Amino acid sequence: MSEPNISAVLLEKGNLKLEERPIPKPGKNEVQIAMHSVGICGSDVHFWTDGAIGPFVVKAPMVLGHEASGTVSELGEGVTHLKVGDRVAIEPGVPCRYCSACKGGRYNLCPDVKFCATPPVDGSLCRYYVHPADLCFKLPDNVSYEEGALLEPLSVGVHACRRSEVTIGSKVFICGAGPIGLVCLQVAKAMGAAQVVITDIEAKRLEFARQMGADVTVHVTSRDGQEVADQVVQRLGCSPDVTIECSGAESSIHAGIYATQPGGVLMIVGLGRRLATIPLLDAALKEVDIRGNLRYANDYPTALAMIASGQVNVKPLVSHRYSLEQTLEAFEFAKKGEGIKVMIHCDKNKA
Amino acid sequence: MSEPNISAVLLEKGNLKLEERPIPKPGKNEVQIAMHSVGICGSDVHFWTDGAIGPFVVKAPMVLGHEASGTVSELGEGVTHLKVGDRVAIEPGVPCRYCSACKGGRYNLCPDVKFCATPPVDGSLCRYYVHPADLCFKLPDNVSYEEGALLEPLSVGVHACRRSEVTIGSKVFICGAGPIGLVCLQVAKAMGAAQVVITDIEAKRLEFARQMGADVTVHVTSRDGQEVADQVVQRLGCSPDVTIECSGAESSIHAGIYATQPGGVLMIVGLGRRLATIPLLDAALKEVDIRGNLRYANDYPTALAMIASGQVNVKPLVSHRYSLEQTLEAFEFAKKGEGIKVMIHCDKNKA
Amino acid sequence: MSEPNISAVLLEKGNLKLEERPIPKPGKNEVQIAMHSVGICGSDVHFWTDGAIGPFVVKAPMVLGHEASGTVSELGEGVTHLKVGDRVAIEPGVPCRYCSACKGGRYNLCPDVKFCATPPVDGSLCRYYVHPADLCFKLPDNVSYEEGALLEPLSVGVHACRRSEVTIGSKVFICGAGPIGLVCLQVAKAMGAAQVVITDIEAKRLEFARQMGADVTVHVTSRDGQEVADQVVQRLGCSPDVTIECSGAESSIHAGIYATQPGGVLMIVGLGRRLATIPLLDAALKEVDIRGNLRYANDYPTALAMIASGQVNVKPLVSHRYSLEQTLEAFEFAKKGEGIKVMIHCDKNKA
Amino acid sequence: MSEPNISAVLLEKGNLKLEERPIPKPGKNEVQIAMHSVGICGSDVHFWTDGAIGPFVVKAPMVLGHEASGTVSELGEGVTHLKVGDRVAIEPGVPCRYCSACKGGRYNLCPDVKFCATPPVDGSLCRYYVHPADLCFKLPDNVSYEEGALLEPLSVGVHACRRSEVTIGSKVFICGAGPIGLVCLQVAKAMGAAQVVITDIEAKRLEFARQMGADVTVHVTSRDGQEVADQVVQRLGCSPDVTIECSGAESSIHAGIYATQPGGVLMIVGLGRRLATIPLLDAALKEVDIRGNLRYANDYPTALAMIASGQVNVKPLVSHRYSLEQTLEAFEFAKKGEGIKVMIHCDKNKA
Repeated sequence: MSEPNISAVLLEKGNLKLEERPIPKPGKNEVQIAMHSVGICGSDVHFWTDGAIGPFVVKAPMVLGHEASGTVSELGEGVTHLKVGDRVAIEPGVPCRYCSACKGGRYNLCPDVKFCATPPVDGSLCRYYVHPADLCFKLPDNVSYEEGALLEPLSVGVHACRRSEVTIGSKVFICGAGPIGLVCLQVAKAMGAAQVVITDIEAKRLEFARQMGADVTVHVTSRDGQEVADQVVQRLGCSPDVTIECSGAESSIHAGIYATQPGGVLMIVGLGRRLATIPLLDAALKEVDIRGNLRYANDYPTALAMIASGQVNVKPLVSHRYSLEQTLEAFEFAKKGEGIKVMIHCDKNKA
Repeated sequence: MSEPNISAVLLEKGNLKLEERPIPKPGKNEVQIAMHSVGICGSDVHFWTDGAIGPFVVKAPMVLGHEASGTVSELGEGVTHLKVGDRVAIEPGVPCRYCSACKGGRYNLCPDVKFCATPPVDGSLCRYYVHPADLCFKLPDNVSYEEGALLEPLSVGVHACRRSEVTIGSKVFICGAGPIGLVCLQVAKAMGAAQVVITDIEAKRLEFARQMGADVTVHVTSRDGQEVADQVVQRLGCSPDVTIECSGAESSIHAGIYATQPGGVLMIVGLGRRLATIPLLDAALKEVDIRGNLRYANDYPTALAMIASGQVNVKPLVSHRYSLEQTLEAFEFAKKGEGIKVMIHCDKNKA
Repeated sequence: MSEPNISAVLLEKGNLKLEERPIPKPGKNEVQIAMHSVGICGSDVHFWTDGAIGPFVVKAPMVLGHEASGTVSELGEGVTHLKVGDRVAIEPGVPCRYCSACKGGRYNLCPDVKFCATPPVDGSLCRYYVHPADLCFKLPDNVSYEEGALLEPLSVGVHACRRSEVTIGSKVFICGAGPIGLVCLQVAKAMGAAQVVITDIEAKRLEFARQMGADVTVHVTSRDGQEVADQVVQRLGCSPDVTIECSGAESSIHAGIYATQPGGVLMIVGLGRRLATIPLLDAALKEVDIRGNLRYANDYPTALAMIASGQVNVKPLVSHRYSLEQTLEAFEFAKKGEGIKVMIHCDKNKA
Repeated sequence: MSEPNISAVLLEKGNLKLEERPIPKPGKNEVQIAMHSVGICGSDVHFWTDGAIGPFVVKAPMVLGHEASGTVSELGEGVTHLKVGDRVAIEPGVPCRYCSACKGGRYNLCPDVKFCATPPVDGSLCRYYVHPADLCFKLPDNVSYEEGALLEPLSVGVHACRRSEVTIGSKVFICGAGPIGLVCLQVAKAMGAAQVVITDIEAKRLEFARQMGADVTVHVTSRDGQEVADQVVQRLGCSPDVTIECSGAESSIHAGIYATQPGGVLMIVGLGRRLATIPLLDAALKEVDIRGNLRYANDYPTALAMIASGQVNVKPLVSHRYSLEQTLEAFEFAKKGEGIKVMIHCDKNKA
């Protein structure tokens, strides 16, 4: 415990710095964690470059990072299901546990949720971090720290696929082959989807999607949603039951509405502009439900079970690795949008 | 059976005429019905004035009318659950019964459905009409022919409220106090909605909505969806769980997205323009599902049970009555958009 | 606050005594409540007469009472949505908020729930009681303390009707016209049930059920489930979609299985013997789901909204009233099984 | 088409004979099929040995067989989605298409369903057979006739797993490693079950189950349900979310109730005695729903998609093969209960 608590602090827009902070002590029902792996998410980069995402504005220094895993280094009062030395993945949103959303099982909709690295809440890209114990999930021996950190994007995929009712025999259309599109692909296959078609504007991403299990890939060159929909339906041999939009592009939403089977679901995961112009009437008249996705709730255990049992394999998503000391370099690289997932290792003592 | 089969035929756009047509004979599993009450729907007027609704174009003469009831006048082969003289309501869409939508219980999504007075299928605004017996529902003595005809819009309300998951304790926001808004209001209350707020741009409609059971009414004078949403939430004392959009106005869709509780549902019933510009991201990030509504499926028996048991009272919706011979006059009146529901009586011999 | 904290303490099986206990102080997120109305439940009587219900054994003195309402008399730290003087209903089960059942929205299944007057947890039949503030629901002016106490059994009815998927148009069969059968009746009607048939072995209870809104009553004189089912179906004119068993009698479970429509639900609310001999194959082959009911979760707000909006009227359920000082007398009366609901008033200063 | 229509006719209890019957002609929307593979089901054997199953009594000669596939040999009027020469699997239940169960999407509950080889309806163990075209599913090139026949039991598994809400991350307990238990195992894994434990009283069946993908097997030697439940929970490391009972043994139902996680599902697929003595109260108080399974509805397309995409592999289930001429021999073997699935080949001309 003699390591100083080096932390990646976003002081203000554009100004990310490593600082030494006090080592936090775990309170009741909390644990202290010696951080190991923290993935860089698009939102981390966005807060750094823009200082804000929608209503969330960086007004005070904030530690970045929310895709994280580490080793339990100290137990707070009342913690019984974990012990010092346990390797854990950290679910980064801490709900209030008292509101109707929390008591109703949709705690991701809690208006008072405290979410790592969403202002003003500190994230976990540091040496020592404290978190509620029930939101730390013990990793079995066959699950690595990096996989633990990847439970975060994987849980987004689990939540999206659950809410879009993917099931055995489903034909699924995924727009966008970035990290979220790829985890949705893997989750959809694990839920029994019979065929998954994935689209992207970059051929290289589709190549990788095929390696990750995509049955059909469509290289998008048009901004006309109807045209893309026609290609997808033709290549799939039928209309998809479910479309999962992970690109944020308006034309992909159009493609999703036009392609999806009457009675199906269009899941909006990608974040585009606030106002979107979409063929809503087409969706309404074929009873294609348009659903959104806010993070996840009760999905971490499932995501972990899937990795542990080998149903999904997220390891190939990690394309680049840096040490905590190289954080700035890692962010500079991530900003370029190359690679898939950039992972930062915080613990000098563990592989 | 000596009456000639006077039929209200739309010859082409703008040209509606009464014609005498042959009296049709019922085939296997069909019944012939001596028509009694047929309500005029906005779509009937629209086909008359515009000759088309979206992809449905009047290319050949077509009998209008699909909100209908009458008396069984002849049985086809194999019909056992009805007898001559039975008073029945007619569910106007005839699905193929063989496709996956039909076999899956969502026959309103059948691509081969034949729907009364949707080109090229003849409607039931005539003296004698033939229909599959299983889609004719016997009216108990305490349900009138007019109520039988009103099962059609009421079933739209039942379908919309079911799909939007209105239940006991729900707070419901209905945009638009026309016939469909009013049946949604009644159905929502019958399903146990604790509070229903309804909006309209006409004060007189809101007055009527209050008589029909609205708990709160909001007179809309702004085209700013956020402003309307704020009024609704303030007047209701909380965010609605469900919003049912029945006006077709884009600003109402905005209001619905802004007002609805995270995790709630926005049901699109009103038909606006094909392309809508909406704050989709707001809906997605609070997991407000946007669902549409195509007619109804398996909802007629429920609508009938609700009228028979007195849970809803649709009688006050009928504001004007005409005879079959006065059909043109009735359509001229309906076109003005005054009154609520215009009803045409086809049977001279019955009140 | 000078009143001594008189408490109805069950010292051991058969030994119920009024004792003065210290006045408890509210902790963080808790409130202290000056108790007003506490209903006697069958389980209170049972713990008194038998000292145990199933695995729950009275091993140490325990305050009885869990159907309760009162006035907020002191706020603990962090409580903002209530103030001193607020009239509140008390949801008596306090879940752990950390386990998967709690986080999944089914906190009634929390293995660590602390439930008033279920050993070893003290109940609320006393002068002053402390409870988590989020489980205290402010009563609007038009809801009385007694109605507040009755939210408890009403919430059982809400939970049972929700889980059995009662909805508009449902035909519902309720076995047993005791307090729980009666609240299920009222909730089912409020959810839009078209017809409710209720059975009992006592004609007098059925008389009361009719006053409470039952459409059909069947006086049960046979122990043959098939015979009862036949009567129910004949009187209802069809098979019920849902059967809610509130009697605990094995023959009623048989009647429910035989009567219920294929694809329907049989809800087990009444508690019979642990082992039951039932025609399970009949249920399985017609896909009648057999579901159980443990208390309630997220149902208090709904139950309150229903009373506040006048959708249900539980006032007539209170048949007898006693003061806190008359507690023993009240229990002696309740033991006889006469009357419907016995209510104890704990606050001398309020009507 | 010159082959005589040899048919396996059950003349009466115990008397199964090959007879030549007229070659049937397809009517409207029907196809004639040159049969290829027909699996023997326990029910076929049962009708032969006992002459009845429950209310279904063999009163007149009836062709056996309902797990079937073949080649379209003639088209009836109106058939467009199939052509002569297409290889098809046959869904053996023909619903009425008019009742509320059919229109509601649960056509397996149709009271007028005609099901192959359930008296008095002829089955398909013959040379030529006629069936509604929409219930014949074209096999892609990579799916064999035998796999087509196995769609029948596989669809039972799909229906059971869907109704029991198996999903990604589920822990599933299957009682009984016979053909139905094995297809449930495969379907559960394909739906993303993280762990499946299966039990049987025969060690050799468990050996096979492991080859088919079971994660854990428990050899049952006790008739005490609680003991078996304890073993299952201990071996699985947690309580299962879902239990699928495929053995018909009462003690397995007990084990299922005791083992299943609160809030979970116990699916009854195995057919035991009509009256069962079960710990119903235990199930009710932990809200473990007990659901049954009648065949399947809308499950054939899914089962086919799963085989076509390689998600399940049912080929190893076929343990023994006979020709149509060897039918008696095949039934004699099947009666012994050895092997897994006995398949009869009806077409001399095709492998």
